[in-house]
Amino acid sequence: MPGLPNGFGGIVPPVCTPMTEDFEVDTASLERLIGFLLDAGVHGLFMLGSTSETVFLTDRQRAMALDVAVRTAGGKVPVLAGVIDMTTAPSLEHARNAAKAGVDALVLTAPFYTRASQDEIVAHFRTIQAAIGLPIMAYDIPSAVHVKIERATITRMAAEGLIVGIKDSSGDEANFRGLVMDARALPGFAAFTGSELLVDAALLLGANGSVPGLGNVDPAGFVRIYDAARAGDWQRARAEQERLYRLFSIIYGGTPGRMGFTASALGGFKTALMLRGVIETNVIGRPLTRYTSEEIERVRQVLVEAELL
Amino acid sequence: MPGLPNGFGGIVPPVCTPMTEDFEVDTASLERLIGFLLDAGVHGLFMLGSTSETVFLTDRQRAMALDVAVRTAGGKVPVLAGVIDMTTAPSLEHARNAAKAGVDALVLTAPFYTRASQDEIVAHFRTIQAAIGLPIMAYDIPSAVHVKIERATITRMAAEGLIVGIKDSSGDEANFRGLVMDARALPGFAAFTGSELLVDAALLLGANGSVPGLGNVDPAGFVRIYDAARAGDWQRARAEQERLYRLFSIIYGGTPGRMGFTASALGGFKTALMLRGVIETNVIGRPLTRYTSEEIERVRQVLVEAELL
Amino acid sequence: MPGLPNGFGGIVPPVCTPMTEDFEVDTASLERLIGFLLDAGVHGLFMLGSTSETVFLTDRQRAMALDVAVRTAGGKVPVLAGVIDMTTAPSLEHARNAAKAGVDALVLTAPFYTRASQDEIVAHFRTIQAAIGLPIMAYDIPSAVHVKIERATITRMAAEGLIVGIKDSSGDEANFRGLVMDARALPGFAAFTGSELLVDAALLLGANGSVPGLGNVDPAGFVRIYDAARAGDWQRARAEQERLYRLFSIIYGGTPGRMGFTASALGGFKTALMLRGVIETNVIGRPLTRYTSEEIERVRQVLVEAELL
Amino acid sequence: MPGLPNGFGGIVPPVCTPMTEDFEVDTASLERLIGFLLDAGVHGLFMLGSTSETVFLTDRQRAMALDVAVRTAGGKVPVLAGVIDMTTAPSLEHARNAAKAGVDALVLTAPFYTRASQDEIVAHFRTIQAAIGLPIMAYDIPSAVHVKIERATITRMAAEGLIVGIKDSSGDEANFRGLVMDARALPGFAAFTGSELLVDAALLLGANGSVPGLGNVDPAGFVRIYDAARAGDWQRARAEQERLYRLFSIIYGGTPGRMGFTASALGGFKTALMLRGVIETNVIGRPLTRYTSEEIERVRQVLVEAELL
Repeated sequence: MPGLPNGFGGIVPPVCTPMTEDFEVDTASLERLIGFLLDAGVHGLFMLGSTSETVFLTDRQRAMALDVAVRTAGGKVPVLAGVIDMTTAPSLEHARNAAKAGVDALVLTAPFYTRASQDEIVAHFRTIQAAIGLPIMAYDIPSAVHVKIERATITRMAAEGLIVGIKDSSGDEANFRGLVMDARALPGFAAFTGSELLVDAALLLGANGSVPGLGNVDPAGFVRIYDAARAGDWQRARAEQERLYRLFSIIYGGTPGRMGFTASALGGFKTALMLRGVIETNVIGRPLTRYTSEEIERVRQVLVEAELL
Repeated sequence: MPGLPNGFGGIVPPVCTPMTEDFEVDTASLERLIGFLLDAGVHGLFMLGSTSETVFLTDRQRAMALDVAVRTAGGKVPVLAGVIDMTTAPSLEHARNAAKAGVDALVLTAPFYTRASQDEIVAHFRTIQAAIGLPIMAYDIPSAVHVKIERATITRMAAEGLIVGIKDSSGDEANFRGLVMDARALPGFAAFTGSELLVDAALLLGANGSVPGLGNVDPAGFVRIYDAARAGDWQRARAEQERLYRLFSIIYGGTPGRMGFTASALGGFKTALMLRGVIETNVIGRPLTRYTSEEIERVRQVLVEAELL
Repeated sequence: MPGLPNGFGGIVPPVCTPMTEDFEVDTASLERLIGFLLDAGVHGLFMLGSTSETVFLTDRQRAMALDVAVRTAGGKVPVLAGVIDMTTAPSLEHARNAAKAGVDALVLTAPFYTRASQDEIVAHFRTIQAAIGLPIMAYDIPSAVHVKIERATITRMAAEGLIVGIKDSSGDEANFRGLVMDARALPGFAAFTGSELLVDAALLLGANGSVPGLGNVDPAGFVRIYDAARAGDWQRARAEQERLYRLFSIIYGGTPGRMGFTASALGGFKTALMLRGVIETNVIGRPLTRYTSEEIERVRQVLVEAELL
Repeated sequence: MPGLPNGFGGIVPPVCTPMTEDFEVDTASLERLIGFLLDAGVHGLFMLGSTSETVFLTDRQRAMALDVAVRTAGGKVPVLAGVIDMTTAPSLEHARNAAKAGVDALVLTAPFYTRASQDEIVAHFRTIQAAIGLPIMAYDIPSAVHVKIERATITRMAAEGLIVGIKDSSGDEANFRGLVMDARALPGFAAFTGSELLVDAALLLGANGSVPGLGNVDPAGFVRIYDAARAGDWQRARAEQERLYRLFSIIYGGTPGRMGFTASALGGFKTALMLRGVIETNVIGRPLTRYTSEEIERVRQVLVEAELL
């Protein structure tokens, strides 16, 4: 029976969706990537997140990615599925497909393109939760959806049983700390930071875990931060986090002007995975710009300095 | 054969999508609404725009709305179909469905949720144009997609043959004037303002027409502005526009705090259409909040003052 | 006795503040500039506005500019003084200095750096008005102060007798139209647009006049738009406005990357005035970047094409 | 001789500026407040910051506040003076006045109202530094000045000798971490967080100290966080920080709708200081709204729960 384990926490990377040259899901590469993550000891898989390029996929492609993940994870760790669409009706369809695929939980954003009030965000969650029944984590990512799910809204939804946790990609760490403090009164509520650069700090505050995009490239590093923090060894956690901070510069591999920042970031991750031999191509979703050989070389240099190549 | 007529211009309302109590497309009401618009003399129908609540519809519902429109329009005026989705792959699917439905042109936004550069926006248009072949108008709506399609990008796409016009919902009239001036060197390029409050001014600048959301409620009024402007009677155009400016206050019928602004605006339009006997319900897409009887009463008052009831 | 004439309207340029090589007010150049504007038939002088680089001046320099203006205008047209500072206490000092200099009216922004509510904006105006007694125009410029003075706030302040008009530099023409419509019920209220690119359109809506930055460079052109509009000759107004639209490209003379946009715009105006022989240097306030010879050449080209050189 | 001590770090509160009923600097209250802070063991005094309501003061009042601070501090801890004004010319005057008052360092924001590029921000710092000679800390507060001083700009200015540290009030902790990492290669560079809610986390990252607004109300609490962190006792640091997080709710004492957020925050601090008997009134600068008795009561409740009353 699906669902999240008691005390769910740890490192749950938002898994990249490898693509073939003609923009199809590269299932063989995705299997390898998931195997690579599981071998490194990650505690869950977040499919169809922003780093997964979900919004670049058709419905059929979203389903393919989930099928590979559920099959490859084989119950070893929970599989979470992002539900990212503009409003309730299309989100319901994605949520149903994800439930059919056998995922353990959903991760749901606020509506976007339109402007929803906080009450309307709650209505969105309520409808999906009532129809699907899977545990839901709130996905707060104002840089993409241009509305914040406020702290009071989060705690209200948690109290009402609509959500079991949050993935906080807002960059507002002070507000996140408030959520973590609130969560102590909410049994089973799990607060994950979406930042890959402040995992040690988030764990110090009391976060349950992290959903680090960079965790695709160096999952073992993030597991080490988590383990060090659990052991109270903050010096070691910090040293590891600083190493990964430097590694994060792969997202600046794209030539400014030649591409937008999203392409640079997504291309940096995929190029690193390609160079490390985990996935086949560094293709990213249309209409974003793909890395060229010069840009690939920049990523290679960073990986060499990080002793990952 | 589909396509836009030479010298395409005039009043092209973004047609509301009436809904049943269970959030299905109310096809009978949609037929009535389109008949109401055609009787008023509008020059085209823009289906699946923002006012049409496109982002609240499933793919199946988008197709239903287009089918009703193409059938009801019966070739009397062009039918344009909005293509609003996050990136190229899902937009391609919508564009194919619209072509199958027999529309005359597409109206395409920039990608959203993700952050695309201006070059990547062009790549988005290029892929859709190459695959579908229908004429495309650019839909500039930064309040929804959070990126502007810059003037230089518009003229570049027009010169390259990727677009045949623009629907400018940016609210940046000074920039729009630049586009209108540029358009004189672009044969057949049509510049439409998305504002319903500055149609006379836009026509004074040289715009080809308007896509007024409020045109659902009082299409004849907007046709009168257009006719007056064509006749050079700016006093009459202004008087009519000021009357419609006051009518626009129906969008503030929703109680602040009880709903967000989008719900208030969409609900205002649909409530007015319901009160005028054109459509059956004032249901709007989930998760937005529906008008209550007190809010309906406010809209009724405005309609009475405007002598539309 | 100071004050604005009944039916105040027309072209009221925000007068540039010429500077010497050591960043002092170049009073001789300022006298020449004011003479140049008066000769062209402008209807008032707006000193210490944004285009005047007020925020780059010390208190002493603000006073110098006002003294030159009041003396040079010699009562032929009203002199308005911008009061631009962060909160009430320093604004009161500027307002007192302006009154002492003998200006006819003040033009007051909302507070900035801090975040004031609409009620607090009203309190700001109320304190200044009570202490000084000069007529006050509201200066709505959210791009600089990062808050909008809402339409309801404007009409409320007008009804309360706190303001006699508005300079609207918000770029929100639809909202401005609402103000113009409101103003018909406010005896003596004058609505000026801050746009130099939509003066004809603003006059069509019913605006009383314009405060065009570009009016420093070609004041006669703006006076011609105003006269044509008053005569109902919208074709001629539009043709003149389009010519000035093209002239406005002088503000893009600065090399992107080498300077910010404000420096490019202010430098463009001053370089054009220097090339036309009206002012001595193209020095702008610190820390902004000054035009180099290559950039000056770009401005010269535009002036030549516009037959202003 | 003025200047900052080697290894400058710790708790440096942005000192409130107490006011009399007629909006004058209440020097007796300011002396008491500074004594209260010194008794609690703070490591420096930051006068004329945002929490100090600097932008609500006249030049004369700024000078009064500095005089009291330098005299009361008596050399026991460094006194830093904020230099907050729109551009270089007025900032130079403030900087000169501060130097005359005998402060040990300046804290300088980017220009505002205008839009400066990163190079122009550097030019701003360079001019002030060359003219004054006092050590300067950069004050990054994009919420107030609407531009970010980018990480590369900070490190460039540090390398050039223009700045000796940063007060980071940007809320971007991930970027701040990068600065802290950069700072290891910059001898003597001190990185202070402006957050009062993440002091433990900032110290974990390696920050040198904090400039906590709430430190006016409970300076001893912040000193305890600092001491615990220096001792490696992160549990104790966190517990203390969480207590202060709850105390921070005094900033929400203002009734929403009745006042803006800035008034609520500043009024919350001053009301708490008044209730604790440190300062005389809770007057804040015009045009902001002052707390009423009901709002004062809310603050009292929080203080009682925090056992500070």
